[in-house]
Amino acid sequence: MRPSGRAPDEMRAITIETGFTKHAEGSCLISFGDTRVLCTASVEERIPPWLRGKGEGWVTGEYSMLPRATHTRGSREAARGKQSGRTQEIQRLIGRSLRAVVDLKKLGERQITLDCDVIQADGGTRTASISGAWVALRLAVNSLMASGDITHDPITAQVAAISCGIYKGTPVLDLDYPEDSDADTDANFVLIEGGQIAEVQATAEGATYDEEGLLRLLRLAKIGCDGIFAEQLKATQ
Amino acid sequence: MRPSGRAPDEMRAITIETGFTKHAEGSCLISFGDTRVLCTASVEERIPPWLRGKGEGWVTGEYSMLPRATHTRGSREAARGKQSGRTQEIQRLIGRSLRAVVDLKKLGERQITLDCDVIQADGGTRTASISGAWVALRLAVNSLMASGDITHDPITAQVAAISCGIYKGTPVLDLDYPEDSDADTDANFVLIEGGQIAEVQATAEGATYDEEGLLRLLRLAKIGCDGIFAEQLKATQ
Amino acid sequence: MRPSGRAPDEMRAITIETGFTKHAEGSCLISFGDTRVLCTASVEERIPPWLRGKGEGWVTGEYSMLPRATHTRGSREAARGKQSGRTQEIQRLIGRSLRAVVDLKKLGERQITLDCDVIQADGGTRTASISGAWVALRLAVNSLMASGDITHDPITAQVAAISCGIYKGTPVLDLDYPEDSDADTDANFVLIEGGQIAEVQATAEGATYDEEGLLRLLRLAKIGCDGIFAEQLKATQ
Amino acid sequence: MRPSGRAPDEMRAITIETGFTKHAEGSCLISFGDTRVLCTASVEERIPPWLRGKGEGWVTGEYSMLPRATHTRGSREAARGKQSGRTQEIQRLIGRSLRAVVDLKKLGERQITLDCDVIQADGGTRTASISGAWVALRLAVNSLMASGDITHDPITAQVAAISCGIYKGTPVLDLDYPEDSDADTDANFVLIEGGQIAEVQATAEGATYDEEGLLRLLRLAKIGCDGIFAEQLKATQ
Amino acid sequence: MRPSGRAPDEMRAITIETGFTKHAEGSCLISFGDTRVLCTASVEERIPPWLRGKGEGWVTGEYSMLPRATHTRGSREAARGKQSGRTQEIQRLIGRSLRAVVDLKKLGERQITLDCDVIQADGGTRTASISGAWVALRLAVNSLMASGDITHDPITAQVAAISCGIYKGTPVLDLDYPEDSDADTDANFVLIEGGQIAEVQATAEGATYDEEGLLRLLRLAKIGCDGIFAEQLKATQ
Amino acid sequence: MRPSGRAPDEMRAITIETGFTKHAEGSCLISFGDTRVLCTASVEERIPPWLRGKGEGWVTGEYSMLPRATHTRGSREAARGKQSGRTQEIQRLIGRSLRAVVDLKKLGERQITLDCDVIQADGGTRTASISGAWVALRLAVNSLMASGDITHDPITAQVAAISCGIYKGTPVLDLDYPEDSDADTDANFVLIEGGQIAEVQATAEGATYDEEGLLRLLRLAKIGCDGIFAEQLKATQ
Repeated sequence: MRPSGRAPDEMRAITIETGFTKHAEGSCLISFGDTRVLCTASVEERIPPWLRGKGEGWVTGEYSMLPRATHTRGSREAARGKQSGRTQEIQRLIGRSLRAVVDLKKLGERQITLDCDVIQADGGTRTASISGAWVALRLAVNSLMASGDITHDPITAQVAAISCGIYKGTPVLDLDYPEDSDADTDANFVLIEGGQIAEVQATAEGATYDEEGLLRLLRLAKIGCDGIFAEQLKATQ
Repeated sequence: MRPSGRAPDEMRAITIETGFTKHAEGSCLISFGDTRVLCTASVEERIPPWLRGKGEGWVTGEYSMLPRATHTRGSREAARGKQSGRTQEIQRLIGRSLRAVVDLKKLGERQITLDCDVIQADGGTRTASISGAWVALRLAVNSLMASGDITHDPITAQVAAISCGIYKGTPVLDLDYPEDSDADTDANFVLIEGGQIAEVQATAEGATYDEEGLLRLLRLAKIGCDGIFAEQLKATQ
Repeated sequence: MRPSGRAPDEMRAITIETGFTKHAEGSCLISFGDTRVLCTASVEERIPPWLRGKGEGWVTGEYSMLPRATHTRGSREAARGKQSGRTQEIQRLIGRSLRAVVDLKKLGERQITLDCDVIQADGGTRTASISGAWVALRLAVNSLMASGDITHDPITAQVAAISCGIYKGTPVLDLDYPEDSDADTDANFVLIEGGQIAEVQATAEGATYDEEGLLRLLRLAKIGCDGIFAEQLKATQ
Repeated sequence: MRPSGRAPDEMRAITIETGFTKHAEGSCLISFGDTRVLCTASVEERIPPWLRGKGEGWVTGEYSMLPRATHTRGSREAARGKQSGRTQEIQRLIGRSLRAVVDLKKLGERQITLDCDVIQADGGTRTASISGAWVALRLAVNSLMASGDITHDPITAQVAAISCGIYKGTPVLDLDYPEDSDADTDANFVLIEGGQIAEVQATAEGATYDEEGLLRLLRLAKIGCDGIFAEQLKATQ
Repeated sequence: MRPSGRAPDEMRAITIETGFTKHAEGSCLISFGDTRVLCTASVEERIPPWLRGKGEGWVTGEYSMLPRATHTRGSREAARGKQSGRTQEIQRLIGRSLRAVVDLKKLGERQITLDCDVIQADGGTRTASISGAWVALRLAVNSLMASGDITHDPITAQVAAISCGIYKGTPVLDLDYPEDSDADTDANFVLIEGGQIAEVQATAEGATYDEEGLLRLLRLAKIGCDGIFAEQLKATQ
Repeated sequence: MRPSGRAPDEMRAITIETGFTKHAEGSCLISFGDTRVLCTASVEERIPPWLRGKGEGWVTGEYSMLPRATHTRGSREAARGKQSGRTQEIQRLIGRSLRAVVDLKKLGERQITLDCDVIQADGGTRTASISGAWVALRLAVNSLMASGDITHDPITAQVAAISCGIYKGTPVLDLDYPEDSDADTDANFVLIEGGQIAEVQATAEGATYDEEGLLRLLRLAKIGCDGIFAEQLKATQ
């Protein structure tokens, strides 16, 4: 029934290639099927002005799509002179999700920026971004710990994200582009290892949903994130 | 236990003053306690370029805070030269929420813009905006029907929004500013009369939450929105 | 002869509702007939960079129209990404007019920003803004004096503003929108209690005017401002 | 008493060099003493969108200062990415002043843009701009009439502008920079040949002024503009 | 003598991986050593307004660096709200270089945009971009010819680019980042198969150069481009 | 054969009028035939942030065209809100060219900005700008040395620039507008007295060129710059 022939609770193949670029303190190219996002973690020994003197660090995210990551070419935000509302929404979500698993005191007075640049888009770019950003962050923090710049691990848990939706009446896991364009409900879940929730964003597009529908989507998301947690571990150990 | 002395499932007083401005086709000043938002509906006989020739209309939202709606003065977005990510996120949510209850075919080739301008902020400005925008929209559509410009009511249901959160370990309804600044989880629910959900946005701030927590927040939201639905009806009948 | 039936030297009803918002140090909603402007005074313990070390304060104004304050919806300046020339002209006028009655040395090293946001427009929004801004400023300074932050009153006089014009050949006081759109000459006067002038801006639109015409407009303005001075006193005493 | 040694009603030397640039349909370099402004009139066979189909033309002005026209270098507006409020105020005034003496119907469906670029500034740049723009306009219209593109002269009169002010208690004509920085009142008058007024902008800076003061400034302005009218005629005949 | 141990006329390894992204009509990931650029060619059935009705097409380039392509993170141009002068210079060069080998009449009324996004930077990003853009263009045109949309090949020749410079007194080919930062002269050559030149940009940085120096750099560039031409052929045949 | 009747190696008349504006530390109006550029040098006792503490100064350039410097009016970059890629390219070239002949250590911790504003354009505005900027810089540095602010001359040589091109198959010197619009190759050379090269930018427009062509253009440029060097000396001695 799904265009891809997947079962309702079946994710696309996930691959994580670490060290994709050499300058970043942590980096990976993460793929959810044909969706591919380059995630880099950049450590800088400076913090935003409003944090000065608090003995804390900061973790933030930025997001962009290459102009031809999509089926038809989109205009370049740098050329248009501003970031779209969608871009800003996504990069705020990335930062918030990663901060949910970082102890900013233990990070010390430094900033880690997670850049998520979509090389190819086929649905689920924000969830791949969050999932890959954790890997880049983990690698960057590992290197800070190896060099002795940080003594206690500031990362408290794994975080991953996945989209679910109601497609032709059936709750399904990990929507690809053909499903995404046609789903009645589109939900993104950011989950933390051990069953906790960092963020739920569930939007009715064509048809509204009810409490039962929300729960079924959440349960699919747990299945999906368990799979991502396993891939994250493999990539960083 | 709540700073305001309210019970966990107790909303602030809601008032809706319709016809607050004379030029708009529909308008109201909605208050959730000390939060006050001016909502206007403007009907224009034009549609966005990408809708041309489809025989459909469009409903969109814009949102802004007056610079001194808040405890300390914020800079004016028009002076800074761009809208913040937060503003864009909220106005996208307003438009999406209202479109969830409008049949755009029945609206015909016209656009209704819902401007939500926060006069005074004390927590919950986006939920007051959505709830008041429905009233302004209802009044504007009533007048289009009275004049015969529209023959079949394009509004399919009431929509309202409310925030809930986990405050000092307890799920509470309709957070005011002191609670909002200090809550562990901050969730916004956009609900449709009859138990359907248009949107859930639930974010862990200090501590994460689990499935049970999400459900308890959703149930509080249903109580709150039922109260708002009643006030919306009183204001528009 | 006037569309409103008013006599040539008759103003619209003026009302001033103080304390319209709770966060600002001073605020009022001022109405000149159907023109309604929310004026707030915000005190900040900082000054512009170029004033540092001079032992002086600063008073400045900002102005905006809500998108649907007018007959047809105007686009939001924050969305367009810049303030129009008209907006900038008006906010420079507001700041200059208020500074004409403030001793900046006595104000001390702090800034007061007067935000004038037009809720509903029916002609004369800039003159209502200036007249209401004085009330907000008076209330904010009263509170600074009550708290002992300021010891000598920095406000040296009342200031008010009114528009006059030549409408169908007759000089008239306080133009409303139908007159404003159709007047040959449109003049704004900013006057100080006791007969002094802070600013004259008199523009020929359809037909030019002569010295006699300018004087007749100035004399009408004096009548109008005397009325506003009285309302300002009532509101602040 | 004046820093320059001029009598109170004495203008600076005015020179007008026509044809300063070869591409513009009309151009001149106008000097009021050390203030020098290049004024060009550009004729384009197109009109603003909101004028289409009305059978009328349009006249508009633009204004800029070269970065080092002033004592210390100012940043370039093109580099900053926006025009200052002052620039916008002045270019709106230039356009309005010239339109006061043009019959837009007789101009036909074309636009004339008057660019006023300040090469060197020593006070009075906006009044020199308006006075020189009339010369550039006159020359451009002459050429349109010579070519037969226009059959009836759309220019109805001469227009000129001059600044006056109250300097150390005395009303003086044509303020130069040292006077301008130190004047109590700074007024700009745009006058039309024959004693009519197009615009008065009179601002109290240090001390306020009264009706008598306004009249004395206006009378000085008439003396000044009569001198400019004579120079304009010499330059264009 | 070179930091990399290369001979003066020795290039870095060049690899070209075609089909790197699936949506673009043509794409490749080109590497000059550690410099890696993703080049995509997007075909659109529209042309810039100023070309309409001429029966010609257009070829244009855009360029960007991912924020962490470099040793230290650079800010994102989309976030800053404008493209740097360097970016604009490079993308103008890319477009000009490719147009030098395209017959725009044969292309027909369509536009091909060459997006060059630098994944990792180690010197020579603009020359890798041009060399890779030709490959993406070739692939896109091949597909237009295969589908019959174009009947006569509009590509007239191969074009490639390489940097040369004078490093510690010796002319060297294909500067990497350590050389680039330290070279006395930095030159970029865009050459066409068969010995023709499309563009020379040769800039003295530390020390100036003479005619003999320019010629020696040009001859190195010919060696380098011959190598690139061979790789381009291998990748597209 | 040339539209102007000039011989292939014949420049237009060059004139340099120094002291064209009174405020700048150095200024000239330079003409290459009908191309006229106002060049000013502004000395400021501040340096860019990234130079602080290095004991060095900075030299930078800015460039602009007046809107009606050209045959048809161009829009004002300040009004459009950004500088074009062409403008940025040219101003980067101006700064680089002048820095090639300045010892920044000897300049001391100050910045000199060279503003090149094109009053009238007829081809070759960037080369006239560089050639005139050197004169303005020389005059400004002379005055810094006369006042004792600088003790050792930081200017190491003269620098000048000229365009050459291949026009109807023949290499020609100093292209004017009719030639520039129609040339096959357009090259700009920045040369230093004594035969050194600071910059070559040679672009094939209609037809490509070869090594021999490049050399012939370079030799023409040397002839042209020798003429400019002589005029620069006359103007500054």
